Amino acid sequence: MNITMPAKLDVLVVLGSLSDKELAKQMRPVFEEFEIAAHYAVCSAHRDHERLGALVAAAEEAGARAIVAVAGMAAHLPGVCAALSVLPVIGVPGSSGLLGVDALLAIVQMPPGIPVATVGIDAGRNAALLACEIAAVARPEVGAKLKELRATMRLKNREDDAALREALKG
Amino acid sequence: MNITMPAKLDVLVVLGSLSDKELAKQMRPVFEEFEIAAHYAVCSAHRDHERLGALVAAAEEAGARAIVAVAGMAAHLPGVCAALSVLPVIGVPGSSGLLGVDALLAIVQMPPGIPVATVGIDAGRNAALLACEIAAVARPEVGAKLKELRATMRLKNREDDAALREALKG
Amino acid sequence: MNITMPAKLDVLVVLGSLSDKELAKQMRPVFEEFEIAAHYAVCSAHRDHERLGALVAAAEEAGARAIVAVAGMAAHLPGVCAALSVLPVIGVPGSSGLLGVDALLAIVQMPPGIPVATVGIDAGRNAALLACEIAAVARPEVGAKLKELRATMRLKNREDDAALREALKG
Amino acid sequence: MNITMPAKLDVLVVLGSLSDKELAKQMRPVFEEFEIAAHYAVCSAHRDHERLGALVAAAEEAGARAIVAVAGMAAHLPGVCAALSVLPVIGVPGSSGLLGVDALLAIVQMPPGIPVATVGIDAGRNAALLACEIAAVARPEVGAKLKELRATMRLKNREDDAALREALKG
Amino acid sequence: MNITMPAKLDVLVVLGSLSDKELAKQMRPVFEEFEIAAHYAVCSAHRDHERLGALVAAAEEAGARAIVAVAGMAAHLPGVCAALSVLPVIGVPGSSGLLGVDALLAIVQMPPGIPVATVGIDAGRNAALLACEIAAVARPEVGAKLKELRATMRLKNREDDAALREALKG
Amino acid sequence: MNITMPAKLDVLVVLGSLSDKELAKQMRPVFEEFEIAAHYAVCSAHRDHERLGALVAAAEEAGARAIVAVAGMAAHLPGVCAALSVLPVIGVPGSSGLLGVDALLAIVQMPPGIPVATVGIDAGRNAALLACEIAAVARPEVGAKLKELRATMRLKNREDDAALREALKG
Amino acid sequence: MNITMPAKLDVLVVLGSLSDKELAKQMRPVFEEFEIAAHYAVCSAHRDHERLGALVAAAEEAGARAIVAVAGMAAHLPGVCAALSVLPVIGVPGSSGLLGVDALLAIVQMPPGIPVATVGIDAGRNAALLACEIAAVARPEVGAKLKELRATMRLKNREDDAALREALKG
Amino acid sequence: MNITMPAKLDVLVVLGSLSDKELAKQMRPVFEEFEIAAHYAVCSAHRDHERLGALVAAAEEAGARAIVAVAGMAAHLPGVCAALSVLPVIGVPGSSGLLGVDALLAIVQMPPGIPVATVGIDAGRNAALLACEIAAVARPEVGAKLKELRATMRLKNREDDAALREALKG
Repeated sequence: MNITMPAKLDVLVVLGSLSDKELAKQMRPVFEEFEIAAHYAVCSAHRDHERLGALVAAAEEAGARAIVAVAGMAAHLPGVCAALSVLPVIGVPGSSGLLGVDALLAIVQMPPGIPVATVGIDAGRNAALLACEIAAVARPEVGAKLKELRATMRLKNREDDAALREALKG
Repeated sequence: MNITMPAKLDVLVVLGSLSDKELAKQMRPVFEEFEIAAHYAVCSAHRDHERLGALVAAAEEAGARAIVAVAGMAAHLPGVCAALSVLPVIGVPGSSGLLGVDALLAIVQMPPGIPVATVGIDAGRNAALLACEIAAVARPEVGAKLKELRATMRLKNREDDAALREALKG
Repeated sequence: MNITMPAKLDVLVVLGSLSDKELAKQMRPVFEEFEIAAHYAVCSAHRDHERLGALVAAAEEAGARAIVAVAGMAAHLPGVCAALSVLPVIGVPGSSGLLGVDALLAIVQMPPGIPVATVGIDAGRNAALLACEIAAVARPEVGAKLKELRATMRLKNREDDAALREALKG
Repeated sequence: MNITMPAKLDVLVVLGSLSDKELAKQMRPVFEEFEIAAHYAVCSAHRDHERLGALVAAAEEAGARAIVAVAGMAAHLPGVCAALSVLPVIGVPGSSGLLGVDALLAIVQMPPGIPVATVGIDAGRNAALLACEIAAVARPEVGAKLKELRATMRLKNREDDAALREALKG
Repeated sequence: MNITMPAKLDVLVVLGSLSDKELAKQMRPVFEEFEIAAHYAVCSAHRDHERLGALVAAAEEAGARAIVAVAGMAAHLPGVCAALSVLPVIGVPGSSGLLGVDALLAIVQMPPGIPVATVGIDAGRNAALLACEIAAVARPEVGAKLKELRATMRLKNREDDAALREALKG
Repeated sequence: MNITMPAKLDVLVVLGSLSDKELAKQMRPVFEEFEIAAHYAVCSAHRDHERLGALVAAAEEAGARAIVAVAGMAAHLPGVCAALSVLPVIGVPGSSGLLGVDALLAIVQMPPGIPVATVGIDAGRNAALLACEIAAVARPEVGAKLKELRATMRLKNREDDAALREALKG
Repeated sequence: MNITMPAKLDVLVVLGSLSDKELAKQMRPVFEEFEIAAHYAVCSAHRDHERLGALVAAAEEAGARAIVAVAGMAAHLPGVCAALSVLPVIGVPGSSGLLGVDALLAIVQMPPGIPVATVGIDAGRNAALLACEIAAVARPEVGAKLKELRATMRLKNREDDAALREALKG
Repeated sequence: MNITMPAKLDVLVVLGSLSDKELAKQMRPVFEEFEIAAHYAVCSAHRDHERLGALVAAAEEAGARAIVAVAGMAAHLPGVCAALSVLPVIGVPGSSGLLGVDALLAIVQMPPGIPVATVGIDAGRNAALLACEIAAVARPEVGAKLKELRATMRLKNREDDAALREALKG
């Protein structure tokens, strides 16, 4: 199977279905900001298991440090990725089914031996940041940038503090 | 991979883990009563996907009419079986995690195209009976026996009716 | 009671109420694609139990291999069908009540002896495909077509893979 | 079908299965205290629908004012009784499945037109008292006794008040 | 306290808040059809307990056979009515909070001794019909009309059966 | 009604039923440690509303700063106390019903205007500490002691830190 | 850190994020009506813990009697405030995540020793009223006004009673 | 503050309370098998936030690649660790409260910017394995060992397969 991806990869992002693409869109600016090379794929665990294996193998080959897998409802994709690789796999439950509770449980309650690092429902941005934190284990400059982001968030929070009192005056 | 199973098979039963064996024990007397040839296997979707594929292929080859898959928690096994075959797959949620609600949702909320016929939590006996009903599509004598079982259940229900009034006298 | 249905029937589809008709509309193209003869009925278990019995008997008489029953909330219809017949009964929980969780539990948690093959909430298409899989037990040509559908789904998934990377460029 | 019950009946109590008999045992002293004639039956809606119809008809014939139906899991029995009669039907969810939540939803979420008067999970005593309240619509002396019970409960509550302070001294 | 209500009353309907008035509007045509005299009140258990006591007493005085109480969220109103009277109290959970699950549990899980006859979430029509069934214990002509309604519902269900097949043709 | 309680009271503790007495036992050492005068009562909102009114009035008269109310299942007691007084009312959900989720929702989801300060399920100790924090608004020495408790808890946490490493050696 | 707030403060209101500002808007008229001096801040426990400590310390210094903390999803803010102070902390779960159930549980289920007084989901108004009730422990005139509010609410409820009957006429 | 930990650390494990020590015991053999240097601490986010900051800083200083945080109920500890560090934080929900659902939601539903890598309820072993996978990003020999573990698990699964058929013979 012919899989084309960057020769030097940090993170493989796999969506179970194209309908999850908004979550991939949450991730892209994060990976660009942190200079993390990401490959984005749609690959259903149920419909194309063979290609999923090839994708994961190619990502390992290209040096990926983490896999992010997004799925809704009976969300098997993150667990199947975790079974295919010993890279850390980050699972993102989509809210398409029962508010995302079905996907959350189907991702997080993995059997002993095959963990999935689960983030919140529809939390594409957090999944990307967690992938950056993992990549930073090998690339210290990413960690430094993550600390800067925290400072920015703190500053933004302080601006919001002033904005609240403005808003309440109205 | 070397898979040994009956030359003539009606139903493949797969457990995700040996700890689900009580549910297989619920099934055996049903299959014996209805003269349904069953092969029982433990095969984790996450730990041994390749063997699972071989099991399913061997079962199809041996003429199986249905697959029963039992799993708990983030229960992917039934869905993975359903992805591997167009035979009807019956999923049984085990109660090992969150009272079985996690397994139920992880089995029943399948994406379009890959259905799993889900039965109740820990409902091994009902899974076996559903497999018999499906086998009966091709083997009318099984259907006739299933009707007899209904008559027996009705009779038992009537005996229980009398037994209740006895019990209340005490 | 006078029930008119095709002389040669594969599947009986029963809705508890006309308001579930969108789920029947999900099923029709599936049955047409697989050349499965289906009869569609509205019949409430609570309001017209006698006619339900006649429908089920007529369907058995006409050679039906499976029954699909759709209901919401305290969804008794699939279980009542399962009590009336030893044909495999597929239950579809509708989302009209508590996001469909009420219907799901009312359908799947059947007592021992009367199984219902439950599919996902509002999963009309999957119910129809499961009915086809069951019909294929007696009609091998349906199984062959089901395999083709899997190949088509795989192809579509690969097209979506390319489409994702296009969408992320925007 | 031959159904034997008191010639003069106030309440029909139906259990879906003999395993619910403890809930019937909660009811008996209530009915005896209020001189309510009750007939206790085990009759599964799924296994013996025809006998259920006969039971309900016989109870109506014998002057019953209410039906109490107990069931667990996918608890259809109360709803089926409600479909068979325009007598008030009281549904008692048993806790045998998912803590009783499955049975509660399967009993209370009835479609328009066929109400079930649902009481709490395993609340056999409250079901019996509600049946007495309904019987009291036609028999004022039962209402008078119910008021006495309230006074007794109030007194007991006051005794418990003193008992608490005793218990805390220990 | 001055409470004006019909001299001859069958049912008292109490809403916890005016925002539940749509549920009262579901009830009115039912009570009119069955010639059940109903008094509609807004009275919060928390904000006006004294008036609630007066309402209930006046309803008992006027011959009421049942009380219907509607409330959402931490829905105490039905239980407080049940504590104030030995008339059958029908509780209707409103969906204003957590889809109505909060109200359902707050109404149905009553302590021993004070039952509430709970109907489905937002099920104003079913509450009214249950009140009619209870009133029919003393007024047989109401029971006869309830049976007619069942026949009408059956007829409507049969019309819907034909309508479904029309709808699927389109 | 004759209610005997300390002439000088800080907190009224009311249990809906004597079966909740373990939660009162959690509270007593807290109130003793902080020299908070507490009166403990059993009084059901449903069975003895009149006495509850008298208890609350007497507590207000005796200078109470807060009311703690404990109840399980359809837990109305805290809300009824909140309706009877403008003192802060602390609600403690008991776990007797659906793991305490039913009581939690029945206590916390109060309508606008009548708040209940809800603590965790079975959290008698936290309810008592919250009552102390409220009493401290008027009695600064209680606040000082509460700060000491925090220091003690911190110390205990540090001892546990060492204890963990000991335990892991074994 | 430089925190500016009123020299004489009754209540500190902290929002985890500016997106919760509607809940602060519910509070402001309450605090104005009861002449409670409130300071409104946005301060995330996760993004600016240090400033949160300064805010709480400044509020204590300025004489605050209570803290109201609003947060959604994994709502840690109320608990972190409770850890920083022995003032009563009122937690308001926001409905931004899983209908607010996630926030409710993350706020109310505090470990022993650090209580949070939790109010209903999105219940900003009730949080403010509870803060007033606590402030009233030291300021009796607030308590008197709270009683007036109850009378106003009662009056409004009686107006709604008449309004309902008008609405049903239409 | 004086924190003693190994000079060269891979993983910091923090428990909110000593009562979670069984989960730490699940982790120790994993870390020993994979030669991962771990420091085990008890430190409550609510009771000793300052020490938690010191622990996290010391762990970063000692080269830690990941933090594992275990907590039950309103489980804030993992999120607080995630706020204190840009290291990947793995959260383990304990089942001490509502079957662990409360802890799961309080850990996984983090706000944007502060992710927590959540594993299953009571899943100490999986948390440790995920920490090893993250450590392997910088230490390839750990990844090689993780692959061996997968092979061992596969072998064990095959042994269980044979064991099942033995068990069913009995």
